[in-house]
Amino acid sequence: MPRSSIRRLFTSAFALSSEGVKVYGLHIGDPDFDMPQRIADGVSDAIAAGHTHYSPMAGIPALRDAIVSHRQRRMGIEIPRNRVIVSQGATQALNSSLQLCVDSGQRVLFPMIYFPNYIQQSTLAGVEVDPYELDESFQPVLEKLEQQVTPDTRAMLINTPSNPTGVLFPPETVRALYDFARRHNLWVISDEAYSDFVYRGEYLSPLSIDWEYPEEERRVIAVYSFSKSYAATGLRMGYMLAPNDSAAFRLELMNEPLTGSLTTPLQYAMVRALEVDDTAERRDALLERWQLAGELLAGCGLKFASPDGGLFYFIDISPTGMDGDTFADRLLAEEHVAVVPGSGFGLVGSRDAAGTLAFTPNALAARCVRVSFAAPRADMEEGVKRLVAFIRRNS
Amino acid sequence: MPRSSIRRLFTSAFALSSEGVKVYGLHIGDPDFDMPQRIADGVSDAIAAGHTHYSPMAGIPALRDAIVSHRQRRMGIEIPRNRVIVSQGATQALNSSLQLCVDSGQRVLFPMIYFPNYIQQSTLAGVEVDPYELDESFQPVLEKLEQQVTPDTRAMLINTPSNPTGVLFPPETVRALYDFARRHNLWVISDEAYSDFVYRGEYLSPLSIDWEYPEEERRVIAVYSFSKSYAATGLRMGYMLAPNDSAAFRLELMNEPLTGSLTTPLQYAMVRALEVDDTAERRDALLERWQLAGELLAGCGLKFASPDGGLFYFIDISPTGMDGDTFADRLLAEEHVAVVPGSGFGLVGSRDAAGTLAFTPNALAARCVRVSFAAPRADMEEGVKRLVAFIRRNS
Repeated sequence: MPRSSIRRLFTSAFALSSEGVKVYGLHIGDPDFDMPQRIADGVSDAIAAGHTHYSPMAGIPALRDAIVSHRQRRMGIEIPRNRVIVSQGATQALNSSLQLCVDSGQRVLFPMIYFPNYIQQSTLAGVEVDPYELDESFQPVLEKLEQQVTPDTRAMLINTPSNPTGVLFPPETVRALYDFARRHNLWVISDEAYSDFVYRGEYLSPLSIDWEYPEEERRVIAVYSFSKSYAATGLRMGYMLAPNDSAAFRLELMNEPLTGSLTTPLQYAMVRALEVDDTAERRDALLERWQLAGELLAGCGLKFASPDGGLFYFIDISPTGMDGDTFADRLLAEEHVAVVPGSGFGLVGSRDAAGTLAFTPNALAARCVRVSFAAPRADMEEGVKRLVAFIRRNS
Repeated sequence: MPRSSIRRLFTSAFALSSEGVKVYGLHIGDPDFDMPQRIADGVSDAIAAGHTHYSPMAGIPALRDAIVSHRQRRMGIEIPRNRVIVSQGATQALNSSLQLCVDSGQRVLFPMIYFPNYIQQSTLAGVEVDPYELDESFQPVLEKLEQQVTPDTRAMLINTPSNPTGVLFPPETVRALYDFARRHNLWVISDEAYSDFVYRGEYLSPLSIDWEYPEEERRVIAVYSFSKSYAATGLRMGYMLAPNDSAAFRLELMNEPLTGSLTTPLQYAMVRALEVDDTAERRDALLERWQLAGELLAGCGLKFASPDGGLFYFIDISPTGMDGDTFADRLLAEEHVAVVPGSGFGLVGSRDAAGTLAFTPNALAARCVRVSFAAPRADMEEGVKRLVAFIRRNS
């Protein structure tokens, strides 16, 4: 199983700052926002009320109900409560979804630039991965999709807005991907962790399309996270929405070996989180940083796909003559700015003659770096200025 | 993947109590103890201090240090901090340990009566399970072990005191199991979730034996839980101890796809938990219930292996002419007492001609029920009295 390149940079950046050096952390996908007080109170109140024991496998009823209402307000669809399965963060939800849809030895389609957890989970599950091609703007090359389907392909992963590229797939692209999955009878795992952070363009969820069809034809497992939406990354809360009773039953069942049971007081806190829809406050704060970072980056002289959402710029820095790993290492050493090499977001597995699995980055990923604009504003501004100066000096 | 028989009885018992019927819950492995106030304060203080963001993959340093000190006091061994990997409960620790030791298609040895999560996790990982035989007292039949090893066997699971049988393996048995694993170069996964709850006999941890050998020969991954020891089942905290740097590195790496990151404020709370060693208070309270349940059960007229630790009596009720499932269903319907059928603790997987995996209980498990003495004392007393009357009426 490959190590995520995010972790490698975390370790180097941490080592440098441990020496007393001020490091500008553009590697972290965790905004510096304080968790809302009502969520903090929700944890304390739950514990004071004795909610410190096991909870039902799919989550406490109050939270599942709150999620039903929340999705109704957001998307205008009425998800039955039994289809809502609470998870320990989107990470576990993605793992459960993959385990549900794809058996060992079968295949899943990922975008060629993707969140590293996907490949780690696939490797653990013995699932084979086929990356679907993205163009220079990180949009799917739709006409090449057909040739990537095999008789063993079972699922397709869609992540819009994307971590790490930040791009939003336009509605017609989401619809084309959905139709493709439908034509080949594939599950769709829709990672919507960043759906509350769209700064421009029209957001269409694959789940909305799924609900245009009768229930027996639905295929989307949608995955959501409380982490960024409610400034609660350290609480590890998320959920999945299942398209039918059978999938819901199996996802609930899988919570048993994967979680034992969910964290009980934190679920009560998430009921409080959903009582106020204040996610736009955090989106607006990030939108401002996104704009500032974009303005500064425009001065670097490189062409790159500007993100529409999420927390990151994903920049092709190949005109500097460096690959992403070298660039990130030198940027940290010379400018004390931490960014994440793109390589870890595009690893491709292959087996040698002895059957040993090894991972190498694809060419697109290898020439990029991921730059977060979620850092505190002053740090972000100084970090991006240093990044721009470093690029200009090396172009 | 099989559904746990614990969950089936939970559902039936919950349905009955939802009708307003008083149910005596001897099915729940979660003592009614209040979580210590210092742990509650630990959560609130951590949140107030802003510890609501991501934490390091293997856990916060303060908790890993506290675990090192705790194990030093308990076992007299000095585990290097990098070998301590915090987990989301023992459940995730067991899953990570299995994934580390055994690849898809390889084999693991379990006791023939075991905690259901093991088989669910093995099934998800594509790992084949060979149950090792237990006698009528739930002790391993050592002379039969050799014939169960194949060239693909990679690990052996030891769980003493056991969930569900409650029996403690005597030191010479633990040593024999360890020597066997050593002879065949197997990993040992040691589930020590109940090691703070021993009521009689001498407890020997496989980890203690492992430390008699030089590091390069060590093979034990020991798994611990805060759940019962600190009355914090709903907080989902546990940890693993790795025998060497390589295993530690890989277990830390696996936390990434399995947890995303650990729950941050709850880790700070567990530092507080370990500041006071008050686990004996809870052990003593349970010891009293264990004694009372034992005295009452002596009147049922059946012979059964009395537990030495843990939370359960595991009773062969076959003289009633019923199997465990029928017994549990009738006991709930007639006496409103919930116990868990033994069947789910001894499922054996087999494939039909089409390769479909199905699970059936082994004969020993099928004729037992698991009776918890962790329920509130008055409920437990009345429940066990009703259970005894039911057995006597049907023998």
